Order: sequence, then C-alpha cells, then structure tokens
Amino acid sequence: MGIELDFIFHPKSVAVVGASTSPNQGNDFFRFLMNQPFKGSLYPVNPRAEEIEGHTSYGSVEEIPGPVDYVISAIPANGALKLVDQCARKGVKVIHFYTARMRETGLEEGMKLEAEVLRRARLAGIRLIGPNCMGMYYPREGLTFKPGFPSEAGKLAVISQSGGNTAQIVNLAAARGVRFSKVISYGNATDLSECDYLEYLAEDPETELIAAYIEGVTDGRRFLDVLRDVSVRKPVVILKGGRTKAGSKAVASHTASLAGSQEIWEAVCRQSGATLASGMVELIDLIVAFYFLRPAFGFQVGLGGGGGGMSVQSADACEEAGLTVTPLPEDLREELRAHDPVYWSWIGNPVDVSILGAGSFTNRYIMQLMSDHQAFDLLICTLDEHFNLNRPEDVPRTKQTMESFVSIGRHSPKPLAIVMGTDLPGTDWKHRALSDMRDQCVGAGLPVFPTINRAAWAIRLFVEHHIRRTEINMLPS
Amino acid sequence: MGIELDFIFHPKSVAVVGASTSPNQGNDFFRFLMNQPFKGSLYPVNPRAEEIEGHTSYGSVEEIPGPVDYVISAIPANGALKLVDQCARKGVKVIHFYTARMRETGLEEGMKLEAEVLRRARLAGIRLIGPNCMGMYYPREGLTFKPGFPSEAGKLAVISQSGGNTAQIVNLAAARGVRFSKVISYGNATDLSECDYLEYLAEDPETELIAAYIEGVTDGRRFLDVLRDVSVRKPVVILKGGRTKAGSKAVASHTASLAGSQEIWEAVCRQSGATLASGMVELIDLIVAFYFLRPAFGFQVGLGGGGGGMSVQSADACEEAGLTVTPLPEDLREELRAHDPVYWSWIGNPVDVSILGAGSFTNRYIMQLMSDHQAFDLLICTLDEHFNLNRPEDVPRTKQTMESFVSIGRHSPKPLAIVMGTDLPGTDWKHRALSDMRDQCVGAGLPVFPTINRAAWAIRLFVEHHIRRTEINMLPS
Repeated sequence: MGIELDFIFHPKSVAVVGASTSPNQGNDFFRFLMNQPFKGSLYPVNPRAEEIEGHTSYGSVEEIPGPVDYVISAIPANGALKLVDQCARKGVKVIHFYTARMRETGLEEGMKLEAEVLRRARLAGIRLIGPNCMGMYYPREGLTFKPGFPSEAGKLAVISQSGGNTAQIVNLAAARGVRFSKVISYGNATDLSECDYLEYLAEDPETELIAAYIEGVTDGRRFLDVLRDVSVRKPVVILKGGRTKAGSKAVASHTASLAGSQEIWEAVCRQSGATLASGMVELIDLIVAFYFLRPAFGFQVGLGGGGGGMSVQSADACEEAGLTVTPLPEDLREELRAHDPVYWSWIGNPVDVSILGAGSFTNRYIMQLMSDHQAFDLLICTLDEHFNLNRPEDVPRTKQTMESFVSIGRHSPKPLAIVMGTDLPGTDWKHRALSDMRDQCVGAGLPVFPTINRAAWAIRLFVEHHIRRTEINMLPS
Repeated sequence: MGIELDFIFHPKSVAVVGASTSPNQGNDFFRFLMNQPFKGSLYPVNPRAEEIEGHTSYGSVEEIPGPVDYVISAIPANGALKLVDQCARKGVKVIHFYTARMRETGLEEGMKLEAEVLRRARLAGIRLIGPNCMGMYYPREGLTFKPGFPSEAGKLAVISQSGGNTAQIVNLAAARGVRFSKVISYGNATDLSECDYLEYLAEDPETELIAAYIEGVTDGRRFLDVLRDVSVRKPVVILKGGRTKAGSKAVASHTASLAGSQEIWEAVCRQSGATLASGMVELIDLIVAFYFLRPAFGFQVGLGGGGGGMSVQSADACEEAGLTVTPLPEDLREELRAHDPVYWSWIGNPVDVSILGAGSFTNRYIMQLMSDHQAFDLLICTLDEHFNLNRPEDVPRTKQTMESFVSIGRHSPKPLAIVMGTDLPGTDWKHRALSDMRDQCVGAGLPVFPTINRAAWAIRLFVEHHIRRTEINMLPS
C-alpha cells in the first residue's frame, strides 16, 4: 500500500453527512472543521435543515454542486448503504464512518451490514475509515475531530482503534510538548487496517515516530511482517487493548476485534522491534522519550538534582527499572578533589544537592562532569518542587536550576531527561511556575517526566530499542 | 513507650538555635513557626544578632528568660555537644537536631559525635529528634517546618527518615484532600526511633492511619513486634527507601541506615499486616485509599463512566491489578431489560457511556444498580475529561456526571473511588474545572485517583488489608 494512500489525507472538499443544527456529533464534526484552517470546500449534508452554522445544507451528497473527495458519515447505521451508493455516484474517494452499531454489536444484522458496506465501497473504489471511529486529525491540512488539539504539526503519527483513547493520547502527549504529523482513529478497520496505515506512515516523510493503540488485528501474519518492516525504519510504540479476559470482552463489544493474549503481543513486538507499553500512561511516557531524547546505547545513568530522600528514591527507581546507577569513576572523583579538597568526598551518584551548600560544588558542575565522562550513557535531572519551591520567592532560583539542566541537555551529546512533578493541584502560583518551567524545558527539546519512576521505565525501553536496532542493522541483510 | 511520648508534641516554648538574620534553614525554621498559630513562646537564639524577624535574639538557650521545652538546632555539628550541655542546664525536654554531618558521614569523628550527643542527652533526660532531619509538623499545635502545609488537622500520621520525602508526602497527599494528625521527619533516629513513634501513634487518639518512609531500622526484632502490634490497631502503609544496591548506598550516606532487602521488608509487612508501597506515587495512592474508602472485603468491581476505549483500559487495568471485573449478573440484566427492552443488551461491566445516548439508560442508573447488588464489592467511576471536556461549555454537564458519582458514593455502603485525570497542564479552564470537581469529590469524602491503573492497584492492596485483618481477628487470641 504505502505512499499511494496519501490521497486520503489531502481532500480538496469534505462533506459532513448528518451534520445537525442541534448539538450532536454530526454538528461537532462540521463545526470543528469550520473553525480549522482547512483550505478546501466544506459542506454540511442534512435534508431536514436549510443551513447549518451559516452554511447552506444539502439534501444529499449528490446535491452538492462541486466534487466531494471525503465524506464524514454521522448518520445512523440504517442509512449507511444508501450513503455508499450516493458517494459512489458522486465520485467520493474516502468515507469516514463515525456511524457505528455494525459488526461490534455482535448481531448478525450488524455484521452483514458492515460486510455489505465494504463490498459496495470496494466496487466503487471508495476507501473506508472505520466504521465506528472518530477519523482524522491532520493539523497540516486543518483536519480535526476535536477542539483543542494543537494547530501546529509535529513528527508523531498515531493510529488508534478507539476515538476516546486517540483524544487521550493527543491531549496527554500534547501537554508534554509532542506534536503530530497524522492521527487516525480507525475503529472496526473494515477496509483500511492498522497494516495499511503503518505501511503508509513508514514512508510518510512527515512522520518520524509512530504510536498505536490496537485492540486486535485481522491478519496476524501480515501484521507481523508489516510491523517488522516499519520498525526497522521508524520507532513504533504500541498499547494493546484487551490484555485480560475482561478487557477482551470489552474489546469485542467495542470494535469487534479478537484481542489476543499479552504474551503473543510481547512476542510480536520482540520479534519485530516495536516497543510495547503496559498502559496508557506508559505509552505517553514512551512517546515522550522517543520524541525528545537523543539515542542512547547503554544503561549507565547519572542522577542529580534531588535532596537526600529524593536521591534514594531515584537510585531505587532507576535500578528497579533496569538502569545502572554507576558510582562516580576514579578519575572523575580526582577532578572533584582538585576542585574542592575538603568537600569532594561528599559527592556521589545520585548527587544529593541538599549537602552542596557547605562546599563549592554546584549540581550543574557535577552533572556537566558526568555528561562529559564516558562512564555515563545518559543523565536524569530532578527538579524537586517539594525541596525547592516553598514560596513564590523561590521561583527565580528554581528557574535557575532548571535552566542549568536545560543548558547541559542542550549541549550534551547524551540524552538528558528532566523529572518535574506537575500533578500537584492546589497552589496556583506553584502550578503556574511548574507549567512555565516545563514549557521552557520542552521548548528546548528536552523530555519532562512527572516522576523518576516513570522516566526510568520509559528510558530503559528507549535504550533497549536503540541497542536492538543496532544489532539488527549489524545483521547480514 | 506509647502515650508517655505525648509531651514532645506539646511544648509550651520553642527556641530556634542558629536562627539567622539572612535566609538560611535556621531563619526558615523560626520564620515559619512565627507565622503559625503556635500559642507558646518562641525564641530565636543567635549570639551574633540583636533581633531576628522582630524578635529579641538570645546569645544562648540559657539566656532565655523563661523555661524552654523544645529546641530546634540549626547550628553546625561542631556546636552540638555544647548545645546539649546548655539544654541540660536549662531543663529542655526535647532537642530536634536539624544539625547533620554526624553518623551519616561514615567518618569516625561523626559517629563518635552522634554517640556522645546521645549519651549526654540521655544523662540529662532530654529526648532527641534526629539528628539530620526536619522535625515536626503538628497542625493542631501550630508546629511546622515548611510553609504551605495545611493548617487544618486530619487523621493521618506520617513518620519519615527524609525531610524532603516528608514534604513530598505531605504536599502530594494534601493535594488529594488528606489532612494530618502528626508528622515527624526523624533522620538518623539516634534516640527516638521509628519504633518509639509507631508505639506512640498506635495509642494516639488523633491518628487513625499511619504512613512511614523508612530507610532502615536499628532493632529488627523490636520493629517486627511493634509493627505487628500497631497494624492490628491501625492501618500502616510503608515506603522502604534503599530497595536496590544503588538505593542502599544512597541510604548509607543519607541517614546511615542499614537498608535491608526488599524481600525481607515484604516478609515483615506480610507477617505484621502492614502494607508495603512500591514507590512514592504508590504510597500516596495507598494513603488516599485508606484515608477515604469504606472497608471492602472482596475484589468484585463495578466500572463505569468511560467511553469504549476507556472501558477497555479500565477492564485491563483492574484485572491486571488483581480485581475482578464481574459480568453483570442475570437478575441485574433482567432489571435492565425491564427498564428498556430495546437497548438493555448493550449494557455491560464496564459501562461504556459512549453508547448510552441511544437508549434510556444513564450511567448513574446502572452504577446505582451495581451499588445495590451483592455481586459487587466496590465501584470505580471514571470521569474521562478527554471524552467529556472538549470546551468550556461542557463543564456544567461534566459536573453533573461528577455529582452523580458523588451522590452514589455518599449513599452506597460500598467503597466508591473516582478516577479523574489531573496531570493535564496547558489549558487553564480545564485545569480549573478539574480542580474544582476533584475538590468537590474530596469534600464529599471520596478518593480521587489520576488513572484507573493507580486506583486499581491501591484498592487491591486496600481490600487485601481488610481481608487479612478479618482473618487475624478471627484467630484465637
């Protein structure tokens, strides 16, 4: 498939069938698009309305004067076949069926309907997104299905069988500074499947990283082949829905997918070189790691920025995640001794900043030494707001600390991640200060994690990916 | 020990030795206390200052005109012995040594000093908190060591070997609605140890729940006995610092504690009936679960409030955490059928709210049926802001959803937890709306978790505690 799918992302005209004058999803689809910088023509279709949101409403797709490339269907399932026929006559190229209650009902009627929709679409050369999905968010073209998604584009592509989970991925990753190339919520995947999208995204020059929420695949053999091919070219991070018995049951009634066990998915990812997330939070953390970090090929981590208790937490979290908290090597210790012959012996990895006051060391100085030393593969700096941010007057000094992390991270050839708690409601000044600081880190291209544990787990998988990728590249081809 | 330790929490007068005119920790201790509703006398001691923050400064503890019960020492270690002697002559009852660089240095000099401080204090009948710690936060008496801690009191006691981690526990738990009886950062524990504090808190009528951050214990035998006794009376949740090799190393230079392996601590907690957290975030979640939830004695969970993808996530997360997502029982399904003979078969557990629009069901109605049905031991309701909160106009309807959860939770005899993402920076209106809603839930006495995964893990351990406790109570005594 690959690049030939490109046309679905570049419609010159979009019609929303089932756009409504009252607030419902059909109205939402139309209104959200209306407020986007989409340059093509946009038509509402609703035989019972004269105009919708100030636009002339048409009785059917066929009544629209100009050509229509892309149709969003927000009508009930019983109108789906008629719509496909109308679209066929109109020369529509893609139908996105938000329309649901087909195969996922588990009822014969719904399964037959979905099969017939597919049959007629194939006959007419129409490609289908869905049914039972939210469709496309493609900021470069001004296509979206939710308000509040970033208007700037980025390098992450997302494919997801769930519309709600797609919104979760976009919102949570966007809040961490990630931006998107192409995002597709694809539901039941009756025509275009995860394999088609993955093949396309592998070749898409706008996409450098792919995240997927998958509930099930229809062709396991093809999926493994495609995933293997794609993963060699771009990192793929996957969240599998339906890992448990109850989850599989929910999947069946959600997208009618056959879930497959977690063990099978672990094997598939191991063989293909994709990275499997254990939950939504972990998926977002992996996205952040892959989006922002420079590649790393070893697990030796230098840690700094916390007080005594935080240093213990950091050391435990990193080692439990599979990173190695390397003791300071002898030659680095000699440099410390030369710098301050009295207090040098207090310094270790992690750097406990609560004891730095007495000597002439700064956290920045020590982290810089670790950044320059070959014993360390990567750095994690903690900005502990419980330690540093007690009152509004502390903000400038804390910002200085953060800026020293940013400065090291910008100039170091090694990956550097920042840990900064943001999940702290209550105090407005603190929330604002932390938000500002996080924005500054993200603006400098550094990943920010809310806890050291989450940073450590994501980074461990990130490093594993790069090691595995190197091994694969060294195999005879 | 037990209740006889009560005097350390009720000083009639406090002196801060090493209070300074310039901003440092000594100045902080004094200033923070000054701004508290502490009713006793408060004295700064600094021979090089005339007055500090508007208070007359004294040359030594002995020069203070009235009696002094409680001394906070913020002077360097080389003044510690002299201070103990002065306090002995003055009749001081408790010294909190913020002063550090004793045993935790690993140097003979530091170890000898700490031992001598203890020897002289014991001779004089003075009790020691620390050294190398932040001391006490006791809101009922207006004692604190950090600004921003809640001024209202509550039922959670915290003991912690790390000052930074104490602040983290207080800030993070406070942001989730938890309030505190007594909080003690106790550092090297050279005199009063975790055992003494635990024995006291077991009898303390102000404390109903105990959280502990422990890096190591000096007397393993006594600790196991004490923990067993305390856990029978009040739930104890523990975070162990130094679970790994690198963590143990950090512990040694932090509080000079012998860390002990994670396996030993798991065995100790299993035998004693305490609950062990796997990290700081998990400790806070356990605190929230124990603080707010009604007891539960089974793992059957009813889930609702999310869309299709969120339902899959919830089912997977709960089963992976060890809860059971029970299918709707036959008689409950009959009730659904009677209520709506067309759409009843769409409803399952989890309740997928994205399909409720078509029928006459509400999430509230179904969750209420689960609350009333004996097949369910507990309920978890998700408020999915990615699904519900797209624009400011959505806030009132989302609040209604939240209020329906609160209403069920208030009246149900079963524990009910709410999942509501708060770790979503960026949009101010959304952050504010979610903060308001979380406050409303917490105000109604319901626990709020940021993700279903975190809720599920904490609740599983919470239920296990109650089952185990029932078993212990049934043993012949």
